[in-house]
Amino acid sequence: MNKEIFIKLLQQRQFKAVRSILDVMNEVDIASLLSKLDDKELALAFRLIPKDKAAEVFSNMDTSMQSYLVEMFTEKELKELLDDLYMDDTVDMLEELPANLVNRILNTVSATDRKMINQLLNYPDDSAGSIMTTEYVDLRDTMTVGQAMAHIKRTGIHKETIYTCYVTERRKLVGIVSAKDLMTTEDDVPIKDLMETEIISVTTHNDQEYVAQLFTKYDLLALPVLDADGLMVGIVTFDDAMDVMVDEATEDITKMAAINPSEKTYFDTSVFQHAMNRIPWLLILMLTSIITGTIITKYENAFAAIPLLVSFIPMLMDTGGNCGSQSATLIIRGIALDEIHFKDLFKVVFKEFRISLIVGAALSIVNGLRILIQYRNPSLALVIAFSLIGTVIMAKMVGCMLPLLAKKVHLDPAIMASPLITTLVDTFSILIYFNIATLLFKL
Amino acid sequence: MNKEIFIKLLQQRQFKAVRSILDVMNEVDIASLLSKLDDKELALAFRLIPKDKAAEVFSNMDTSMQSYLVEMFTEKELKELLDDLYMDDTVDMLEELPANLVNRILNTVSATDRKMINQLLNYPDDSAGSIMTTEYVDLRDTMTVGQAMAHIKRTGIHKETIYTCYVTERRKLVGIVSAKDLMTTEDDVPIKDLMETEIISVTTHNDQEYVAQLFTKYDLLALPVLDADGLMVGIVTFDDAMDVMVDEATEDITKMAAINPSEKTYFDTSVFQHAMNRIPWLLILMLTSIITGTIITKYENAFAAIPLLVSFIPMLMDTGGNCGSQSATLIIRGIALDEIHFKDLFKVVFKEFRISLIVGAALSIVNGLRILIQYRNPSLALVIAFSLIGTVIMAKMVGCMLPLLAKKVHLDPAIMASPLITTLVDTFSILIYFNIATLLFKL
Repeated sequence: MNKEIFIKLLQQRQFKAVRSILDVMNEVDIASLLSKLDDKELALAFRLIPKDKAAEVFSNMDTSMQSYLVEMFTEKELKELLDDLYMDDTVDMLEELPANLVNRILNTVSATDRKMINQLLNYPDDSAGSIMTTEYVDLRDTMTVGQAMAHIKRTGIHKETIYTCYVTERRKLVGIVSAKDLMTTEDDVPIKDLMETEIISVTTHNDQEYVAQLFTKYDLLALPVLDADGLMVGIVTFDDAMDVMVDEATEDITKMAAINPSEKTYFDTSVFQHAMNRIPWLLILMLTSIITGTIITKYENAFAAIPLLVSFIPMLMDTGGNCGSQSATLIIRGIALDEIHFKDLFKVVFKEFRISLIVGAALSIVNGLRILIQYRNPSLALVIAFSLIGTVIMAKMVGCMLPLLAKKVHLDPAIMASPLITTLVDTFSILIYFNIATLLFKL
Repeated sequence: MNKEIFIKLLQQRQFKAVRSILDVMNEVDIASLLSKLDDKELALAFRLIPKDKAAEVFSNMDTSMQSYLVEMFTEKELKELLDDLYMDDTVDMLEELPANLVNRILNTVSATDRKMINQLLNYPDDSAGSIMTTEYVDLRDTMTVGQAMAHIKRTGIHKETIYTCYVTERRKLVGIVSAKDLMTTEDDVPIKDLMETEIISVTTHNDQEYVAQLFTKYDLLALPVLDADGLMVGIVTFDDAMDVMVDEATEDITKMAAINPSEKTYFDTSVFQHAMNRIPWLLILMLTSIITGTIITKYENAFAAIPLLVSFIPMLMDTGGNCGSQSATLIIRGIALDEIHFKDLFKVVFKEFRISLIVGAALSIVNGLRILIQYRNPSLALVIAFSLIGTVIMAKMVGCMLPLLAKKVHLDPAIMASPLITTLVDTFSILIYFNIATLLFKL
């Protein structure tokens, strides 16, 4: 939809035309179109959205637009919107809104909903409880398929998903039936005979990354969430799991690049906030690289005697850093995808050791030959070749072990990637280099 | 399920017990349990899997297990399995199997299926066509809800998803109806009145990353795929889109760490293959860091006069590298998530410039003060402070521009991250440093 045409129609108060445009547009696209309007136009346009789309458009808006609308709504409008919003979207919004608007919303909803919302707001960030919704289809195992379908027809429209139905007995989950099974089975079959009883579930305090892993592993559409007593309290739907997967990958990528992760997009984060997310790790890394510098000064005599030695420092440090981050990255990703665990430590170390022998040999031969040809200095070629092999082995050992050790002591493996590994690898590579040089050149 | 108990039951030929275990287990878990058996046990166990689960268990197995089973199946068994496998899973398997088994399978399926399979095998890797399936629910707009539900009951069991139904007219897609709408609407309502006509679709040659982005953006369960003539040829389902998202993130992360990506997991990749994936970039980076080394030798006089200068090289190069990869990483991820585009180049550069002023100032002040206190040498403090600001600005400019330029000329932005940026930033930071030092110390 062309934004200019839409605004023009709105300003000319051609409401019928605006309404018919909104009628065919997708909720996500409407939200994105509305984000380009000013506040007054936004209020006007929002009221023209067909009622059955309004809640979903609203949940796709950013916080500033939601705030503005909540502030501007009449009591009645707000109540209607909240009735149509899914519980998890309401909670997501409340987590971002200013306190006065949160109060306004909590005063508008019913006492039952208020209790539920407060409970959901209390789950820890990044837990299954914080991303679940409480609207799911609840069946009894005494129903028949026909009765279940009738039940869904009556209540389904207000559920976030009806494609997985939950069979409960006094809030205890006893089975799962898919809508596919219901739709392709004769009406008189009892639910008891149709339901699956081997159920994959999570608890409210499970980490959201674990939840997302279950979705990919089992190709799930929804996953039931149980409380500490094993009673069913809600479901996580696949769209929220997809968001978690994308967010967790972004978080890992950001951390590996030595940046404190932000929940906002690049452009939504202010210049100052960007700087604050980046400075801490840069400072730590800068100050630790001073260690490397200090070590170098210890070998002043060496490079005073053979100044050429200095020119190999960048190559050795870079290669070490790159080798270390190669290993670390593969291990960190493997941990995130649940493919590598701490019990594999020895297996990983042995594999990386063999890899580093091949890699080290290849790099040493290429570089040794180059030095031999360029400087006709066999001792120098040997020093560099040995230093390279040593550096590669050391870097890959450090790179593969640190993330696994971090995981073991419940630190974030991704943090280990670039920052700490770089420092260790730099220091060790300088030590290896100058020790081999001192030894071979008898400095 | 305990593996030892299961194998024991199998060896004691307690087939009834084995069957009842397999009866309650999930398909994914059965595949993982079977992967721990030897070939003879595998063949035995696979035949005991309930018929309605066998195809899904099979599609969750790895290639070597699938090969073994296909080889061992009777004609009849193979035919039964292929009938139950979804088209996209069959094609996935054929892409990996050895040629003789591919022929065996193509000879077993019907002529129509063979034609379809050959067509699917021909779509380029990473295209929508290569991940789509051809089994979807096809409705007419002249049907009523009741007729549509009856149609689904008859044919739905063989469709990969029935939750999004497609209304076509001579293979042209005219509308979409969700199973939720069908299940919550009265039987006599015509499909024409219920269907959505604003349809999000892709073509067979669209990139799979774009397909996955649409799934997250619009929270889709399935997406119709059209051919070059606009006729409907298949659908992509959300589980395949989730896999694509995970794979693409892994690929980006791997490339950013200067590794050629592999489609296999860490442990499934051989030591030699790991080494081959890592050596090329290490070689390129090593040889280019020789440039940096060569530049350093040009300034031999400088560090012969003031040896202390050498000790700041690691700190400056590290900081430059880290600053560059911070910016590059955020931009690359933004591009992957469709949040940053080439048209934003100027906006990005201006933002990164302001960020680098703050970051550069912070790092310079801390480091300048340290040098002032440690060496009581104001000129040295100034040289380092100015070099740091220069390096940070340069690194962030290079880091943010290269990925966007790469995208513009259809190269992979992720490749730009660590490798090329490191080299450029290293070279420039040495140049900045020694030029400022030469100037201020009048060397």
